[in-house]
Amino acid sequence: MTPHDAVEVILAKRDGGRLSETQIDWVVDAYTRGEVADEQMSALAMAILLNGMDRAEISRWTAAMIASGERMDFSGLSRPTADKHSTGGVGDKITLPLAPLVAACGVAVPQLSGRGLGHTGGTLDKLEAIPGWRAALGNEELFAQLEGVGAVICAAGDGLAPADKKLYALRDVTGTVEAIPLIASSIMSKKIAEGTGALVLDVKVGTGAFMKDEARARELAETMVALGQDAGVHTVALLTDMSTPLGLTAGNALEVEESVEVLAGGGPADVVELTLALAREMLVGAGVTDVDPAAKLADGSAMDAWKAMIRAQGGDPDATLPTARETHVVTAPASGVLTRLDAMAVGLAAWRLGAGRARKEDPVQAAAGVRWHARPGDPVTAGEPLLTLCTDEPERFDRALAALDGGYDVAPAGTSYTPAPLVIDRIG
Amino acid sequence: MTPHDAVEVILAKRDGGRLSETQIDWVVDAYTRGEVADEQMSALAMAILLNGMDRAEISRWTAAMIASGERMDFSGLSRPTADKHSTGGVGDKITLPLAPLVAACGVAVPQLSGRGLGHTGGTLDKLEAIPGWRAALGNEELFAQLEGVGAVICAAGDGLAPADKKLYALRDVTGTVEAIPLIASSIMSKKIAEGTGALVLDVKVGTGAFMKDEARARELAETMVALGQDAGVHTVALLTDMSTPLGLTAGNALEVEESVEVLAGGGPADVVELTLALAREMLVGAGVTDVDPAAKLADGSAMDAWKAMIRAQGGDPDATLPTARETHVVTAPASGVLTRLDAMAVGLAAWRLGAGRARKEDPVQAAAGVRWHARPGDPVTAGEPLLTLCTDEPERFDRALAALDGGYDVAPAGTSYTPAPLVIDRIG
Repeated sequence: MTPHDAVEVILAKRDGGRLSETQIDWVVDAYTRGEVADEQMSALAMAILLNGMDRAEISRWTAAMIASGERMDFSGLSRPTADKHSTGGVGDKITLPLAPLVAACGVAVPQLSGRGLGHTGGTLDKLEAIPGWRAALGNEELFAQLEGVGAVICAAGDGLAPADKKLYALRDVTGTVEAIPLIASSIMSKKIAEGTGALVLDVKVGTGAFMKDEARARELAETMVALGQDAGVHTVALLTDMSTPLGLTAGNALEVEESVEVLAGGGPADVVELTLALAREMLVGAGVTDVDPAAKLADGSAMDAWKAMIRAQGGDPDATLPTARETHVVTAPASGVLTRLDAMAVGLAAWRLGAGRARKEDPVQAAAGVRWHARPGDPVTAGEPLLTLCTDEPERFDRALAALDGGYDVAPAGTSYTPAPLVIDRIG
Repeated sequence: MTPHDAVEVILAKRDGGRLSETQIDWVVDAYTRGEVADEQMSALAMAILLNGMDRAEISRWTAAMIASGERMDFSGLSRPTADKHSTGGVGDKITLPLAPLVAACGVAVPQLSGRGLGHTGGTLDKLEAIPGWRAALGNEELFAQLEGVGAVICAAGDGLAPADKKLYALRDVTGTVEAIPLIASSIMSKKIAEGTGALVLDVKVGTGAFMKDEARARELAETMVALGQDAGVHTVALLTDMSTPLGLTAGNALEVEESVEVLAGGGPADVVELTLALAREMLVGAGVTDVDPAAKLADGSAMDAWKAMIRAQGGDPDATLPTARETHVVTAPASGVLTRLDAMAVGLAAWRLGAGRARKEDPVQAAAGVRWHARPGDPVTAGEPLLTLCTDEPERFDRALAALDGGYDVAPAGTSYTPAPLVIDRIG
């Protein structure tokens, strides 16, 4: 095929047609090699966003992105593998207790992660709050740690789905992020190339999620589950609520601290509930049906796996975590019941306090973030602390407070409050 | 505004909204300056193609493209100005006799033209078949020639609507050419910046035209007429047939030769008809209602203006035109009546013979092209010449003949044939 075919592929999708397997294979490969230019791919991405792709097209597109790079293979391990992917939420530290918990249950977890961008934190950013911990691992270290410890959370190498890496950066600056076929193929190409045997997707819905709308979240979940099945990976998705932030903290060190509480058998009930729900799905996906993960939290074996996992990557699991130089307390405006705490407001505040980054080259603050002292349904007292804002740079408080303005409601005492279910549905 | 606004503008159009005047002004200017990247503009162009722009948006977009460069002003001339633009057709040499004819009627014609790309020839390519003629003129030469001779056909300088030049090149490689708002604003930004007082648009419809479909051609014509009105330029459009090629020749020197026949008072009836129809519209637009252009063809004054125009740009109007080194004759397959000669087939054949270019840096052959010996409705005799193919490179004949395959029909003698009207409608 000639370079002219880039226009032919664009026209086919622009005019509402299907892309052939040959067209998809060629355009993804040629884009990765630089033969199809960024301006051609962005026009195609916009046409895909507006005109869609069917299941077979998305499946082929995903396969082409996987074929652009290396593919890992964990079949030589002595135990089965399972991984989890979250579409991103506020206070979503679930990966931290989940990976060692599942490892303690006998299933290896190869969690190749990214850094955060925007109002949702990144798993690697959180772990980097632990003194000494390093995100980068070579493939041999990764295999050895998976075999020995059973859990790895590390940076995804550049070798997995380089087409996706290039395309994601392009979509970010061209208004073409929000296309379900492209979101689904981006996530799934990396997870399939990573070589996990089973995959559980945590698809968030609500104000703090990428998908605000349940129908769109469901469509994304169904698309990804289908892609996993097409690629032979045992895949299920949970649709979970992200209108309220998870747990009681958003921020890097703050979320590590809360994760350790969960691993110690305590922690906020919602974080425990979601960790166990996802762990059970991962175990089933990996064929392990005789282990109760709740017992592994209770008996300390999940905590042992956590410490081994952190130590294997140079971290000190017993080190004191950094704390913020400055804090600012927001008090409850009235006494009564907290009936709403908006995930986006909290996420934005944590981001503005320095926990997240606006550009991928920005640094993050380990200790910045938000701690809230009540969850929806809890009683609050006028003048008592409702939220604590943490940052090393006090000039950030004003904009964080602005983000929180209107982000919570307190109703008179005695107002009935019915919590929304955390796990909305299971797909797959 | 910040660079982030490129994404905001893209999202607004992607999600079906209107672009504000501020957004349009900013994005066109920032794109011209390179602050908005090609990949961002191509995504926006695709969103515009699929979601449209309303009249006010297109008008503002056009104004922003005009504002990206210089704007000419002919108000200092001693006579009014009028110009013509054709959307491009096969055998469409009308500009060549039209410009001197209108000049001979007392209206100055500042025809700033481009080169051909694809199956329709370019006016400058045709005139460059005349020995010595040069397309590039400085602004002072242009004014002096307009005042002295009354007609100029020359290359549009880089100073007019540079935003359009950059955007057109981008659209060409990103599958975003066929967006009526972008086509209309591209044409009209250059014509309005050129400073003509009146403008007549020849919008072609049919197999050999850019718009195959009358409804789309009409929409384009109406959009452009509205843009002209919004900018204070007296603008009308004729919808004209391009299912059959114009005249009896397609090619550079071949079309110059036919144009000279028209200026000499002869030439094919359809070329004469369309030249006079467009001339009358230009004269009315310029406020000249007391001159009959047919008389100026008959009395030789249009020919005098032609010779003066060619000489002013270094050309020798009496020089022998180049002829092709090789010819190939296609004979009529049967005796009867020619009932169809397809414009696209002829245009493609002329292009493949070397009359046109595939890339803008390609050369064209002055003598290449197609001459047909009958027009639809004419009798033909089996074995007698129907078309003559001309080229300097005989290896081109095979692909040209392939283009002509199925491109004409001969019906039994006595079959009734009703020609389609050449001028389908007038808009404005």
